[in-house]
Amino acid sequence: MNHLLTMTELTIEDIEGILYDARQFADGKAWRLGKQVFVANLFFEPSTRTRFSFEVAERKLGIDVLHLEETNSSVQKGESLYDTVRTLQAIGANAVVIRHPRDEYFNELKNGISIPIINAGDGCGNHPTQSLLDLLTIKQEFGSFKGLRVLIVGDIRHSRVARSNAEVLTRLGAIVSFSAPSEWQDETNPYGTYIDLDVGLKEADVVMLLRIQHERHDSSMTLSKEEYHHKYGLTIQRGNNMKTGSIIMHPAPINRDVEIAGELVEAKNSRIFKQMENGVYIRMAVLKRVLQYAEGGVLV
Amino acid sequence: MNHLLTMTELTIEDIEGILYDARQFADGKAWRLGKQVFVANLFFEPSTRTRFSFEVAERKLGIDVLHLEETNSSVQKGESLYDTVRTLQAIGANAVVIRHPRDEYFNELKNGISIPIINAGDGCGNHPTQSLLDLLTIKQEFGSFKGLRVLIVGDIRHSRVARSNAEVLTRLGAIVSFSAPSEWQDETNPYGTYIDLDVGLKEADVVMLLRIQHERHDSSMTLSKEEYHHKYGLTIQRGNNMKTGSIIMHPAPINRDVEIAGELVEAKNSRIFKQMENGVYIRMAVLKRVLQYAEGGVLV
Amino acid sequence: MNHLLTMTELTIEDIEGILYDARQFADGKAWRLGKQVFVANLFFEPSTRTRFSFEVAERKLGIDVLHLEETNSSVQKGESLYDTVRTLQAIGANAVVIRHPRDEYFNELKNGISIPIINAGDGCGNHPTQSLLDLLTIKQEFGSFKGLRVLIVGDIRHSRVARSNAEVLTRLGAIVSFSAPSEWQDETNPYGTYIDLDVGLKEADVVMLLRIQHERHDSSMTLSKEEYHHKYGLTIQRGNNMKTGSIIMHPAPINRDVEIAGELVEAKNSRIFKQMENGVYIRMAVLKRVLQYAEGGVLV
Repeated sequence: MNHLLTMTELTIEDIEGILYDARQFADGKAWRLGKQVFVANLFFEPSTRTRFSFEVAERKLGIDVLHLEETNSSVQKGESLYDTVRTLQAIGANAVVIRHPRDEYFNELKNGISIPIINAGDGCGNHPTQSLLDLLTIKQEFGSFKGLRVLIVGDIRHSRVARSNAEVLTRLGAIVSFSAPSEWQDETNPYGTYIDLDVGLKEADVVMLLRIQHERHDSSMTLSKEEYHHKYGLTIQRGNNMKTGSIIMHPAPINRDVEIAGELVEAKNSRIFKQMENGVYIRMAVLKRVLQYAEGGVLV
Repeated sequence: MNHLLTMTELTIEDIEGILYDARQFADGKAWRLGKQVFVANLFFEPSTRTRFSFEVAERKLGIDVLHLEETNSSVQKGESLYDTVRTLQAIGANAVVIRHPRDEYFNELKNGISIPIINAGDGCGNHPTQSLLDLLTIKQEFGSFKGLRVLIVGDIRHSRVARSNAEVLTRLGAIVSFSAPSEWQDETNPYGTYIDLDVGLKEADVVMLLRIQHERHDSSMTLSKEEYHHKYGLTIQRGNNMKTGSIIMHPAPINRDVEIAGELVEAKNSRIFKQMENGVYIRMAVLKRVLQYAEGGVLV
Repeated sequence: MNHLLTMTELTIEDIEGILYDARQFADGKAWRLGKQVFVANLFFEPSTRTRFSFEVAERKLGIDVLHLEETNSSVQKGESLYDTVRTLQAIGANAVVIRHPRDEYFNELKNGISIPIINAGDGCGNHPTQSLLDLLTIKQEFGSFKGLRVLIVGDIRHSRVARSNAEVLTRLGAIVSFSAPSEWQDETNPYGTYIDLDVGLKEADVVMLLRIQHERHDSSMTLSKEEYHHKYGLTIQRGNNMKTGSIIMHPAPINRDVEIAGELVEAKNSRIFKQMENGVYIRMAVLKRVLQYAEGGVLV
């Protein structure tokens, strides 16, 4: 594994390997490359959670972090993404983590950049470490994906996670359903069937709520927040109707009382903050993979 | 001591303990938790001085620093402060340092957040590490607070420091006076009496100048900068009238030739930059306290 | 060597010493001060490349980095540059790296600041570490500067590098020529003669392209990008006309297809990314010099 760009590139074996390593890190195992390593985190969109998750993962691996956010960069001077990344490679970065608003920004990098690229989110496209941390959370809970019913609720069309999660969960043997307002349904996503929210909730093992991504829509939502919560949100009543043993997931940041009632965010069956914790272990595992492939290194 | 939120929460014993540890750090003592520790510094208002002071303190204790400034965060996506801090806790922060423009922002955090919170300034309210570094500076100079005359000059009403310093200095046995333009006097602050500046200066052991905080006023100051300097500033002439052995303090950043004549900033009896140096030791002491309480650790 | 402010201050011996140390670092040598060291990087203008180059250099020397960018600072509260730097000194910075849009900003710092100042670019004036990395790149290639023909092309008038490079190259024995549109010629720069680009290219050992610094001009360029490229850019055809053994240099960031054809950026005789790599070694050498002067330290 040289880069980590999309989930579809990963085989089942790749995924199982990453989940295995992540659980090792969750159990306190360490890994070192045996030399000073620099990783550049380039965020061309703000993201507290993903940024700090990578940063903690990197520091736990003893990596020196170079952090760049959009507004602080030569990008303003009209430099191409390729030249920015090529520069960081020249300066000594051993790998680069990139979040960028352009779909598949990485296509312009694959030729010419020789250090590993980890995709931390591209436009409405991919966010593979988010998908992997979701898989880790589900695996921790249920041990396996076979036959699990996963209900993805909300903005299917604009979510980075909906498509890639549905694809990989299907590949792993889960049964995926979607609930969404008609304007946010996505006919190009073949990895799930649309179902009424209240019907789906009663059967689902995993209720995966998506963020309303106000910042990605051209038009404003036609529903008010209250209407959305009433029709598509996990209200307290809907929380009570969930199947025994089922769990709540959300990629965050959360719009409280829109996608989910504020009181349910830290409910007993919510794994929302567990997902965030798992994000660190997944990113450690992914960094280990790409750096080990590029440079060697040992589990200690 | 779990959190450090306000000075009024601290007992005399707490304060003496922090000042003792700070002097140990000033003398070159080190302290380590014996494991990797992350502290997140969340600044929802800019502050070079306080930010770097905490950052140096953290690094001197071997702590990994996560730094967030207002404009770079998911806060823009409408996330609550609670959710941001809860996220950092999930990701692995062992403590959080927060500066926020809202008075007593920490009340929404106390329930639910289990890692220590260090208040680095809330609105017009509290700034306990600033008060503590002022106390350290006075203690280094005079050995004791009993009977010391402290004159606080300037924007009593809008200053984070005026109220909490006056309270704690009174508690420690000092005699506090204020000099301020009438519109910046604060009748709700019972810990000092108003006095004419030129009278107060001749008696004071400590002349504590406050910043004109342009950014916190709705209306502009009615006095021009020159008028302010003439009426309430420490002019060169007033500097000459100060009591033998007395010292000048200012929390900075300084408006030169407004609160204080530029030539007096580094005068022989100015402790302004000494205060900044002491800020690092105080923050080391406070970090040690809250982390030791939360996680253990040893002085080495 | 206490500060590094301008190239003209450096003797030939100083320069040779820095180039020697830089080559040691390029060969993998390490150097440590033997105690915890803080360096503050203050960037009052954005610069990905210079910022990260210093940051990597610092981390490779085991230095703790304090990073400040313009918009995040108390500078907004009206603090002078002197007070900001004096504060960082008080807080514990052992040296400071500064980029500032004001020409010779450092003149207000020399009195009063006792820690070393490394100039990372002042206005249209100096950028000594850029000049030094250019010298290292030329020295690596040709072994010596004596009699080398260096052609500097582009915005001679507004470039930080043109003047100081021309001066030092002349001092080291090279023969410098300039090619520039008439409005960007600089009669105050006596260290080169103007020559037609196509004539100069055939003789030059080093073709040093300058950036079009849109952000430093009051008026817009009178030539379009296409016209500039046609008249003053290194087109593919001009690249073919370069002398055998000659090299292409550019300080970056690059405006592709303006100063240089995109296809030539990574041409076999381009040293553009090599320059960036060398920047790290030069900055390590400069940091070693000033810190060693100020504090001691050993090559390990």
